[in-house]
Amino acid sequence: MTVNVLFAATEERWSEYRAPLTEAFAEHGLDVNLSTEMPPEEVDYIVYAPNSAVQDFTPYSRCKAVLNLWAGVETIVGNTTLTQPLARMVDPSLTQGMVEWVTGHVLRHHLNIDFFLARQNGKWERHVPPVAAERPVTVLGLGELGTACAKALAGLGFPVTGWSRRAKDVPGLTTRYGAGGLEAALASAEILVLLLPDTPQTVNLIDAGALATLPEGAMIVNPGRGPLIDDDALLAALDRGHVAHATLDVFRVEPLPHEHPFWSHPRVTVTPHIASETRANTASRVIAENVRRGEAGEPFLHLVDRDQGY
Amino acid sequence: MTVNVLFAATEERWSEYRAPLTEAFAEHGLDVNLSTEMPPEEVDYIVYAPNSAVQDFTPYSRCKAVLNLWAGVETIVGNTTLTQPLARMVDPSLTQGMVEWVTGHVLRHHLNIDFFLARQNGKWERHVPPVAAERPVTVLGLGELGTACAKALAGLGFPVTGWSRRAKDVPGLTTRYGAGGLEAALASAEILVLLLPDTPQTVNLIDAGALATLPEGAMIVNPGRGPLIDDDALLAALDRGHVAHATLDVFRVEPLPHEHPFWSHPRVTVTPHIASETRANTASRVIAENVRRGEAGEPFLHLVDRDQGY
Repeated sequence: MTVNVLFAATEERWSEYRAPLTEAFAEHGLDVNLSTEMPPEEVDYIVYAPNSAVQDFTPYSRCKAVLNLWAGVETIVGNTTLTQPLARMVDPSLTQGMVEWVTGHVLRHHLNIDFFLARQNGKWERHVPPVAAERPVTVLGLGELGTACAKALAGLGFPVTGWSRRAKDVPGLTTRYGAGGLEAALASAEILVLLLPDTPQTVNLIDAGALATLPEGAMIVNPGRGPLIDDDALLAALDRGHVAHATLDVFRVEPLPHEHPFWSHPRVTVTPHIASETRANTASRVIAENVRRGEAGEPFLHLVDRDQGY
Repeated sequence: MTVNVLFAATEERWSEYRAPLTEAFAEHGLDVNLSTEMPPEEVDYIVYAPNSAVQDFTPYSRCKAVLNLWAGVETIVGNTTLTQPLARMVDPSLTQGMVEWVTGHVLRHHLNIDFFLARQNGKWERHVPPVAAERPVTVLGLGELGTACAKALAGLGFPVTGWSRRAKDVPGLTTRYGAGGLEAALASAEILVLLLPDTPQTVNLIDAGALATLPEGAMIVNPGRGPLIDDDALLAALDRGHVAHATLDVFRVEPLPHEHPFWSHPRVTVTPHIASETRANTASRVIAENVRRGEAGEPFLHLVDRDQGY
C-alpha cells in the first residue's frame, strides 16, 4: 500500500532532501508517495521543519507521526494542535558533527590557540599549556549530544563532569544532577560546554549567579541553545574578565543581529549555528526507518516526551 | 650504595627538575647524590639536555647511561665520544601534550576555525564543514608520538593513513611504508601531520615533489622536526595555493628568526615549539625508573638505536 508522506519544510530543504529521502524509502522497502503538497486528510506522515508553513495540525486527521528534521523541538512542542507522536531527529552525522565542533573549540581554548594566532609578529613567546588531565571540563546536558561530547573529551584526557536534570550514570564521567548538583558542576568548570535543551527550566540557567560560580578565567562554549544564557549577565562577566572567553554558536535571535554586542566583543567568538547540522543522507535513513516502524506497528524511534518538552 | 647522578642541563632546567627528581628517586627507593657538578670519573648516570656544557663524554668512564630529558636526540646521537647507552625521554605527559596539540590543530583546520575567527564582523555566513569521516588525514611517522596522534584522530572519526619507514601494523589505521608507500600516503592527505625524527633519510622529505603529490588545498601540521620540510618549496606551494595552510611548531633554526618569511605569510601559522614539552613531574619518574633498572641490572627503557639515529 502506498504511504503518503508530506514534506513540510522550506524549498531549499526540499531540493536537498528529495533524492536522499526517495532513496532511503526504497532501501527500506517502502512504497511512498513523497510530496510537498497533498490533501491534509490523506497524509500518513509529515516530515517537518519548524519553520514550515504547516502550523495547524488539526486537518491531518490520519497522520501517524510528525518526523522532525531537526534535533530541537522547542518551537513545535507547545503547539496544542499537534496531537500526533512527534519524533526528534537523531542523525548520527549530527551527533558526530557536534562532537567534532565541541572537541575542536574546547581544544582551541585549552591550547590557547587564539593567543598564538594573534602572535604572528616574529616574537617567539613560549607558553606551554597544562595537559588535559589538569583542565576540568563540565558539560551541562547529558542527552544524545552532551553524552557523546563528554565521552569524547574524557577520551582525550580531560576530567569531565556531566550534569543533567535527572540522575544519570555515564562511565568515565563524574556525574551530578538536579539543582543540588549544579553548583559543584559549575565551580570546577574551567571550560563549560552547554548542551541542554531549551525548556522553561533551562531558560537563563546561566545567569549572573551561575557565572559567578565558575572559576576565575573560565571559558564557555555554547552549541546548545541561545536562551540558556542571560546575555547581559554574560557580557558583564566577560567585561570584568571573570569569564575569559565565550564561543557561541546559538542565539536568542538568529541570525544574530548585526548590532548585537557579541559580534564585536573581544572575548566572544560568534559562529553562525554550524556546530551541528543534519546531513541529508543519514537523516533520510532515520526518517525512513521511522516510517517503516509506523507501518509495521513498531514503536517510533526518538519520540519527544511532551511533558518534559524534549 | 649511593648512586651519583650528574644533572647536565641549563640552570633553568635544574631549578625545574631538582625537586621532582629528588622526589622520584626517593619514591623508587634509590639513594642518589644528585648534583650539577661532580668529578666525571665518579658519575654513574647523566641526566642530559643536548644544549648542556657536557659535549665530551670520554671522561665519564664509569657512567652506565645517558638519560636524555628530551625526545629528540639528533644533536647528540652523532657524538662519537658517547659510548654509553643513550635513552630518549618518553614522558607520558609529552605524548599526551602532543596528542592534544595535534588533535587541536587538525580540528582547527578541519572545522575551518580561522575562517570564523576572522569573521566577527556581524555577517552571518554559514559554511558547514564535512564530518571527519570525509576528511582523510595522513600521519608520517609511527613512533611513540605519531602512533598516539594517529590513534586519537582515528578515534574522532578521521580516516587516518599512517606511514613509517619500516612496515608497521596499527589497528584502526591504514598503514603504508617505505619509499613505495609514501606517494599514496601523501596523495590522500587533506591534512598531513609530520611526526618523523630528524635523520639523514628524513631531511627535506617534504620537498617540491612531495608537496605536489598532496591533494589541492591540503593543510600541513608539523610538530615533528624543522628539517623535514624544504622551506622554500613549502613557501612556493603556499604562494600558489596548492597547500592551503601550514601550521609549523618546529624550524631549522629556533627561535625562528624574526625576518623569516614564515612569520608573515598569511597561510602559515608559527607556534614556538610548544606542541610537546616534557613535564618535570612525569619525566622525573621515567628517569628514576631507568636508574633503578640500571642498578638492578635490568634493561633500560627507551634506548636509542644508534644505527637508525633515533
